[in-house]
Amino acid sequence: MSGKLRWLWALVPLAGLHAETGADAWLRYAALDAAAARRYVNTLPPVVVVLGNSPVEQTAQRELIRGIRGMLGVTLRVSSTVPAEGAIVLGLDPAVRKAVPGTPAGNPLAEDGYALSLRTAGTARHLSIAGGSERGVLYGTFALLRKIALGEAMEALNEHSAPYAPVRWVNHWDNLDGTIERGYGGRSIFWDKGVVREDLSRVSEYGRLLASLGINGCSINNVNTDPRILTAEYLPQIARIAEAFRPWGVRLVLSVDFGSPQRVGGLATFDPLDAGVAAWWKAKTDELYRAVPDLAGLLLKADSEGRIGPSAYGRTHADAANVIARALKPHGGLFFYRGFVYDHHMDWRNLKNDRARAAYDNFNRLDGQFDDNVVIQIKHGPIDFQVREPASPLFGALEHTNQAIELQVTQEYFGQARQLVFLVPMWKEALDFDMQARGAGTPVKALVAGKVFQRPTGGFVGVSNVGLDANWLGNHMSQANLYGYGRLAWNPDLTSQQIAAEWTRLTFGNDPQVVQTIESLQLKSWRVFEDYTGPLGLQTLTDIVGNHYGVSVEASERNGWGQWHRSDEKGAGMDRTVATGTGYAGQYRPAVAKRYESLATCPDELLLFFHHVPYTHMLHSGKTVIQTLYDLHYDGAVSVEGYVNSWKLLKGRVDERRYAEVLAQLEYHAGQAQVWRDAVNNWFHRASGIADAKGRVGHQPGRIEAEAMTLEGYAETPVTPWEGGSGGKAVACQAAECSAATRFEGKAGWYTVRVQYFDQNNGNARYRVKVGEQVVDEWTASNWVPTQKIDSSSSTRRSVTGIALRPGDVIRVEGTPDGGEKAALDYLEVLPERP
Amino acid sequence: MSGKLRWLWALVPLAGLHAETGADAWLRYAALDAAAARRYVNTLPPVVVVLGNSPVEQTAQRELIRGIRGMLGVTLRVSSTVPAEGAIVLGLDPAVRKAVPGTPAGNPLAEDGYALSLRTAGTARHLSIAGGSERGVLYGTFALLRKIALGEAMEALNEHSAPYAPVRWVNHWDNLDGTIERGYGGRSIFWDKGVVREDLSRVSEYGRLLASLGINGCSINNVNTDPRILTAEYLPQIARIAEAFRPWGVRLVLSVDFGSPQRVGGLATFDPLDAGVAAWWKAKTDELYRAVPDLAGLLLKADSEGRIGPSAYGRTHADAANVIARALKPHGGLFFYRGFVYDHHMDWRNLKNDRARAAYDNFNRLDGQFDDNVVIQIKHGPIDFQVREPASPLFGALEHTNQAIELQVTQEYFGQARQLVFLVPMWKEALDFDMQARGAGTPVKALVAGKVFQRPTGGFVGVSNVGLDANWLGNHMSQANLYGYGRLAWNPDLTSQQIAAEWTRLTFGNDPQVVQTIESLQLKSWRVFEDYTGPLGLQTLTDIVGNHYGVSVEASERNGWGQWHRSDEKGAGMDRTVATGTGYAGQYRPAVAKRYESLATCPDELLLFFHHVPYTHMLHSGKTVIQTLYDLHYDGAVSVEGYVNSWKLLKGRVDERRYAEVLAQLEYHAGQAQVWRDAVNNWFHRASGIADAKGRVGHQPGRIEAEAMTLEGYAETPVTPWEGGSGGKAVACQAAECSAATRFEGKAGWYTVRVQYFDQNNGNARYRVKVGEQVVDEWTASNWVPTQKIDSSSSTRRSVTGIALRPGDVIRVEGTPDGGEKAALDYLEVLPERP
Repeated sequence: MSGKLRWLWALVPLAGLHAETGADAWLRYAALDAAAARRYVNTLPPVVVVLGNSPVEQTAQRELIRGIRGMLGVTLRVSSTVPAEGAIVLGLDPAVRKAVPGTPAGNPLAEDGYALSLRTAGTARHLSIAGGSERGVLYGTFALLRKIALGEAMEALNEHSAPYAPVRWVNHWDNLDGTIERGYGGRSIFWDKGVVREDLSRVSEYGRLLASLGINGCSINNVNTDPRILTAEYLPQIARIAEAFRPWGVRLVLSVDFGSPQRVGGLATFDPLDAGVAAWWKAKTDELYRAVPDLAGLLLKADSEGRIGPSAYGRTHADAANVIARALKPHGGLFFYRGFVYDHHMDWRNLKNDRARAAYDNFNRLDGQFDDNVVIQIKHGPIDFQVREPASPLFGALEHTNQAIELQVTQEYFGQARQLVFLVPMWKEALDFDMQARGAGTPVKALVAGKVFQRPTGGFVGVSNVGLDANWLGNHMSQANLYGYGRLAWNPDLTSQQIAAEWTRLTFGNDPQVVQTIESLQLKSWRVFEDYTGPLGLQTLTDIVGNHYGVSVEASERNGWGQWHRSDEKGAGMDRTVATGTGYAGQYRPAVAKRYESLATCPDELLLFFHHVPYTHMLHSGKTVIQTLYDLHYDGAVSVEGYVNSWKLLKGRVDERRYAEVLAQLEYHAGQAQVWRDAVNNWFHRASGIADAKGRVGHQPGRIEAEAMTLEGYAETPVTPWEGGSGGKAVACQAAECSAATRFEGKAGWYTVRVQYFDQNNGNARYRVKVGEQVVDEWTASNWVPTQKIDSSSSTRRSVTGIALRPGDVIRVEGTPDGGEKAALDYLEVLPERP
Repeated sequence: MSGKLRWLWALVPLAGLHAETGADAWLRYAALDAAAARRYVNTLPPVVVVLGNSPVEQTAQRELIRGIRGMLGVTLRVSSTVPAEGAIVLGLDPAVRKAVPGTPAGNPLAEDGYALSLRTAGTARHLSIAGGSERGVLYGTFALLRKIALGEAMEALNEHSAPYAPVRWVNHWDNLDGTIERGYGGRSIFWDKGVVREDLSRVSEYGRLLASLGINGCSINNVNTDPRILTAEYLPQIARIAEAFRPWGVRLVLSVDFGSPQRVGGLATFDPLDAGVAAWWKAKTDELYRAVPDLAGLLLKADSEGRIGPSAYGRTHADAANVIARALKPHGGLFFYRGFVYDHHMDWRNLKNDRARAAYDNFNRLDGQFDDNVVIQIKHGPIDFQVREPASPLFGALEHTNQAIELQVTQEYFGQARQLVFLVPMWKEALDFDMQARGAGTPVKALVAGKVFQRPTGGFVGVSNVGLDANWLGNHMSQANLYGYGRLAWNPDLTSQQIAAEWTRLTFGNDPQVVQTIESLQLKSWRVFEDYTGPLGLQTLTDIVGNHYGVSVEASERNGWGQWHRSDEKGAGMDRTVATGTGYAGQYRPAVAKRYESLATCPDELLLFFHHVPYTHMLHSGKTVIQTLYDLHYDGAVSVEGYVNSWKLLKGRVDERRYAEVLAQLEYHAGQAQVWRDAVNNWFHRASGIADAKGRVGHQPGRIEAEAMTLEGYAETPVTPWEGGSGGKAVACQAAECSAATRFEGKAGWYTVRVQYFDQNNGNARYRVKVGEQVVDEWTASNWVPTQKIDSSSSTRRSVTGIALRPGDVIRVEGTPDGGEKAALDYLEVLPERP
């Protein structure tokens, strides 16, 4: 394009050229096929009238025109009055009733709810989108557009929808420097270098995504909060973000530091019972509301993981929460206090200590002491977003306190956007879990929504952590988690299957094979992930004190962080029974507690969360614990290999960019699943001393350890922890170039040569694979993984397919280190291909 | 990717990420479906042995491995000896016979020819690619890969192929500053700012494309030659280009300036009969061969369009050619002398003058006087690459002189890469035309190949003019012309359909709907282009003295350039008969001359090329000339509209990038076809005074002239020539912003509003279309067309579809000028859409 614009590009309409980057996520408004579009065009009124002047209603009208234009190829006529021929009429419910003749009477709509209906009167056709609030108008508009994208019939449209709970928020753990704690989709869309970004266009686009799901609040800074956020210089900046969100009905939320009165206020104390501190919070809150009049509230993490809190003055969490809540009260703001409070210096030798108890122990006794605009924000399980946890008992305990469930959309413990894990089925289990808080029929979702104990507020908070990456979350498939979170926050009665199907169709189109494949991958992915990362309630056996990514079976043990699974040579699992263990099971209401307390009734999938048993313990399934561990890890790795194969069948059915990106992700994922499989199985094999009944563990067909190859320049190095490397060892290059060679003695035929190597984040080493003198593959190890070390997190697979090997062939891997990356190798696998 | 590499991108294998930019053209080696790939893998020997060490043979082996890897997903084993199990054996024919046991005897292969055969002996399978030269080995390799891409069976492979002629060259009209005369695919791949480019990677890639077609020579500088090309400073630069081409068997050709001995040699003269001049050419040629030992030859345009030539000294073209040819002779070089010699200052009032006569008049009398390494390079028709010309009579006249046919791949007169025109059917008509040079059975192809009069050399030259654009030629579809040229140069007996099918499948894959659609578009496109740009032998009615792009019916008339069609109020066409006209028809051998001479036998499609007739003249078809002109122009425009509709059905079947780019091209093309239709029809309507029997000409349904709209800031301006604008007029904006409004009084319904505006190349004006106060479309006029004027070349269509209009609606176009571009408008068309 240098110099003059090249002619062709100038002609391509922006919409047509738009490659599928993922930026529009589930709001692509892709053109329907001609017949479907024509049917809608002939059904829908061609005119749109918006009855209100609010920014949110104006947004609704613009979005409707945009969506109809994209999907149906026509531009709705904007009219200021409802014409005789009829129109799509958008507005608050009473206004719509007045404007559209003959609207049937009905109950008033809930706040943020909407009603859609199509009515014909003579030649006039009216489609009304009535909102219980301005937001409801917008939500109804997105609902209508979603129906069209999904191909639903319009002719008999008559639908009411109301949100399940008033709180439907997202949190972000963004730091003011632009980094994101546990963010995997690029840098912050809000912050850069200590200030709010100049260009907030991605914030506005994000507001659109959130609004399409009915999400109405968004925190913009880390719960590990930089106190400067409350200084005067930040207020106008924050106001700019609020402005970008406002047309989408998304209200701003700020995380605060409990020490602010002292740290930025200059007071001598931050004691919540000090009158000066209370006055400071009041004045600061008033100042905030002058800058952001529709601020939704504030959020606090206190007395947890090193954050200061009321314990500094011997005050309670209620004291702490109420002082700020009272400052918010006149403005209608909510104060969210995180239930994630625990001691991370617990003595691991004491078998009665239990981090899982912490939320209940901290908050249950304060029930009734919190003001009515305080909400306790409770992680869905008692630990920390592990692959399998029971629902937190605190949900069932609080009767006089508002609560919200905290769900983690960002995949901190779920492969960090490098692996495909659809979290909705897991969330559904928590939300649908009956806490029996008032007898049967009190699922978590009803409790957090305040429906059980008639609380004034409550609901859902998702830790989203999107970033500047075009696809928001670091990969395309992870968008399903944000979509699913939002849909559940609106209506937790939706099934996982419904959500997966909707998302897939909106995101990838309506090709049946595409829909069936992606839906199936998503729906099984959580269980598969569990299978290879620590099933039976072990939780994710990851590097718990480090990057939370790679496998490290013992990282949780023998430290104060309390994520112990207490597996050793005798058995595995943590005894949380009342009878002999930590007593955690007793935090549940009796019916639930009883089920978990007993080995006979505790479900297999949570067995090792509640009980310590010998490896030979027989499960309900009739298999031993140890054989189940082996089998599930093999099953999981096989399933992920299957993802790759299923995805490859979609070539040509999914746009090429997303096809290639997802394929690369899945191929990497399959390699990691194998690393996990081997690490966990080898660890338990060594610990238990019990052989795999199927003979697989410790015997990998076709595997040649790097340390057993003929090495030039490479030197053996231990992998730490040992289970992250095959045989506990790798080889690292100590020269400018190194090589590792092995002689092939198998049958002549076609083979895949898999190179398991270590792609750290501190260099871009080069690799080359030769058969004899022929280079058959070469690549640069430039993946970005969260480690500088030779370990399970950096362990990466390269598959060199379609290689013709003959007995006697020398297979050689040549490595060229770069920076701190030593071109390390773990092993080769030489696997026959089917003819 | 700022800072650290984003993880996902790092994982995408280069091959997978590779968007379809068009850079690989027909050599994409796209993966076959799994079943087809497996079949080939099980049929082909898995080992490759190359018997020769030449760069070209090494290239063949590399290309074979690359192609097999891409299409079949396996890597052939490289072996230095033929193993017992068998191999794909590449080499010169005798070497292959020796290396592969049991090769059946056969005739020796032709220079550059190849033989492919698969033989099984016991468990051994040998596939031999035997070449008649090193090039033949490479050509055979490309042929094998093409067969695989096309899905042809291998089991009984036994095929010989030899090129039809020794000369299979391309020319480029690249200037040393990097511009290209008549180039539409970006700047020169060879030159930039007066020197050879530093980065010649595109030259190497181009060499690959050429080699895949069997093209063996390439000129790299304009025939309107900068004499500096022969100075010492350029030799090492030129040698670098030769080096980039050499592994592909493509030999370098240079265009030279006939005045070089004086201009760069410092001699007092460039008289070809001067001994000093001859010595200078000899010394210069020796110097050239020291730098480029395999230089294929030199090329000269002399005494034409302002180029100097032998006429300066009263010498003949033979004198001029032979002096340089003799310098080349010892090195085996060829000298190409262009037959495109004519007087561009002819008196247009003299009805006996005729530019079409020039080539024959100039060269026929010199037949026998040219040395045997001189080749006369003759454009396929007597004029200059017009849409319809008879084959040049010179082909049939030269009996003792080598000749080559010059075909123009770059679409100078064919929409300049903005319109889709597949030229192979046109070339086929020329190549297959029987000149009856020695009785029947002497088609042009046989004459130029030297087969009729047993000439030592001859063949094909294509003016390719590729550029740095990713897709080489400015759009994807034009690549078919380069492909088709090359395939015809190898084998002119291939049919247009065969070539279109091959190209489409190689370039866009084997989806039957894709193949059928693209093949059909390509095959009809030349006739369609002819229909709307000047049928019946009128030639292209373009701006003949200007950009050769837009329509300008009279541009050819009343000047010395001689592309007259002599249409006036009485009739149309140029009398080239012997009896009453210029006598051009008499330059053909009698049987041909007789057919053209007579109105009764002259084919309709060339009628106005050979005859001047009244508009009411009745054609063989039974329709008058004038009605035929009207009808064909409507037919042509309708056909191009059909291209758009057919293409849209390929959405999702063609990769998104090429889909969008081709769609944009076709939509623009459809608009230009309408401009041509109206301009030509209106001109002939005014000239003839005869109404269109179908009532269309002058009556455009739904059209509202801009000058008839309510204007604010816009002022009426004439369009020159008048037929380029509807009603001869446009409106141009004389203020900072302007508007043109009209009241719609049609029936309520869905409409397409077409805005015909002028997108010049000297600004980026903005346009906005409103219905009432609603903006329904806006865009920037940033297309690049070859004009700064408000004329037919800048006339561009924007279609605003899916607009709901109601009686009384005000439709308003707002324009904001930019630079010299005055946001000019020609008209609106408001057209009902089908319900």
